[in-house]
Amino acid sequence: MPKIVDHQARRLLIAEAVHRIIDAKGLDSVSLREVAAEAGISMGAVQHYFATKEEMLRVALEQLNARIALRVTAADQHDPLRLLRAAILEVLPLDETRRFEARVGLAFLARSVVSDELGAMVRAGLPLVLGFYAGQIRAAQAAGQLAAGLDPDQEARALFALAQGLGQPALIGLYSPHDVIALVDRHLARLANPSITSA
Amino acid sequence: MPKIVDHQARRLLIAEAVHRIIDAKGLDSVSLREVAAEAGISMGAVQHYFATKEEMLRVALEQLNARIALRVTAADQHDPLRLLRAAILEVLPLDETRRFEARVGLAFLARSVVSDELGAMVRAGLPLVLGFYAGQIRAAQAAGQLAAGLDPDQEARALFALAQGLGQPALIGLYSPHDVIALVDRHLARLANPSITSA
Repeated sequence: MPKIVDHQARRLLIAEAVHRIIDAKGLDSVSLREVAAEAGISMGAVQHYFATKEEMLRVALEQLNARIALRVTAADQHDPLRLLRAAILEVLPLDETRRFEARVGLAFLARSVVSDELGAMVRAGLPLVLGFYAGQIRAAQAAGQLAAGLDPDQEARALFALAQGLGQPALIGLYSPHDVIALVDRHLARLANPSITSA
Repeated sequence: MPKIVDHQARRLLIAEAVHRIIDAKGLDSVSLREVAAEAGISMGAVQHYFATKEEMLRVALEQLNARIALRVTAADQHDPLRLLRAAILEVLPLDETRRFEARVGLAFLARSVVSDELGAMVRAGLPLVLGFYAGQIRAAQAAGQLAAGLDPDQEARALFALAQGLGQPALIGLYSPHDVIALVDRHLARLANPSITSA
C-alpha cells in the first residue's frame, strides 16, 4: 500500500519540520509558509495534509509523544519497575535527541496554559501517561518491587511532576544527566523501600 | 525621597505591564510599543527606564520572583517546615494571583531553554531558591520535623521539581487546588516520617 505509506511519511515529514521551527523560532512562527519552507515542500502540499495551524500543532504534539512512546516500548516489558524508570528517563533531556524533544515539549506546555485548544489536547493526553505510570506501579507492587502500601494514582502524579520539573534545570545546565538520573533513582528507591531516607 | 519612590514605582508599573503582555500575547509580543501602551505611558518614558527588551524581561522576571518571595516572608519564620511548605505553595497555581504568576513563569521557563540570556538569568537565580529550600530542610531536621538522614540538597532539588511539575496540570484543570496541596503534603509527610508509604 504505497499510498498509505507516502501519506504517513509526508505527515511525519511535516510534523518534524514543525518541531524544528518551534525549537528554532517558537510556536508563534509555525505558519503554512514557514512549515512548507522547512519541510522543503510546497504550501499546497502542506495544505493537502493540514487544513489549519491547530491541526499541524496537534499532529506535531502527537508525533512528539509517539516518538517517546516508541522508545519506551523498546524497554524490558517484563520488569514493571525497569519499564517505569525507562518511561521516565525517556522524557528527560539526557542526550541531544531528548534535549530537543524536551525543549519542544516545554514550548507546548507553556502554550497549553494560555491556549484553550492546546490545553484541551494536553488535558486529554495526560491521563493516558498517568494511567501508564500507575499501571506500572501496580504491577511493580504485585511483583514485590515497590511497597504495597503506595497509592498508585497519587504516586503516578508525583512521579510525573518530578520528571516534568527536572527538565528545565537540566536544559539550562544546572543539573547534569547524572544528577537527573540520580534524583529519579532516589525517588524510585524510596518507593521500593520507604525506610531509606538518604541515598 | 519622592524621586526614588517614583523611580521604583515606575519600574514596577512597567514590569507588571510586561507580565500582562506575556500572559495575553506571549513573550514575543513584549516590545517598547506594546509595553508603553499597556502601561499607559509614553515610549520615551519606557526607554528612560529600560534600554533594551532583555532588560525589561530581566526586571519582569525579578519582579515576579520578588512578589512571591514577599509573600513567603509573611509566613511563620519560626517554623522551618511550615515556611518550606508556604514557599512551595506560593509558587503553585492555587488562586487567581498564583495562576497568573504560574502562567507567566511558565512562559519564562520555556523561553529560558532556547534563549541564552534568559537561560543564564534563570541559572543564576535557581540556586538561591534551591539554597533556601535546603536551608529550611536543614533547620527542620535540626528541629526534629524532618528525618535526620535526608540529604538537604538532593531533597531541595526533588521538592523544587515536584512544585514545578505540578503547575501545568493544575493550570489546565487536570488537578484541583486540593489535589495539588495533597500531593505536596504527602511528599512532606514522607520526608518527616519515611515509614509512611500512603496517606
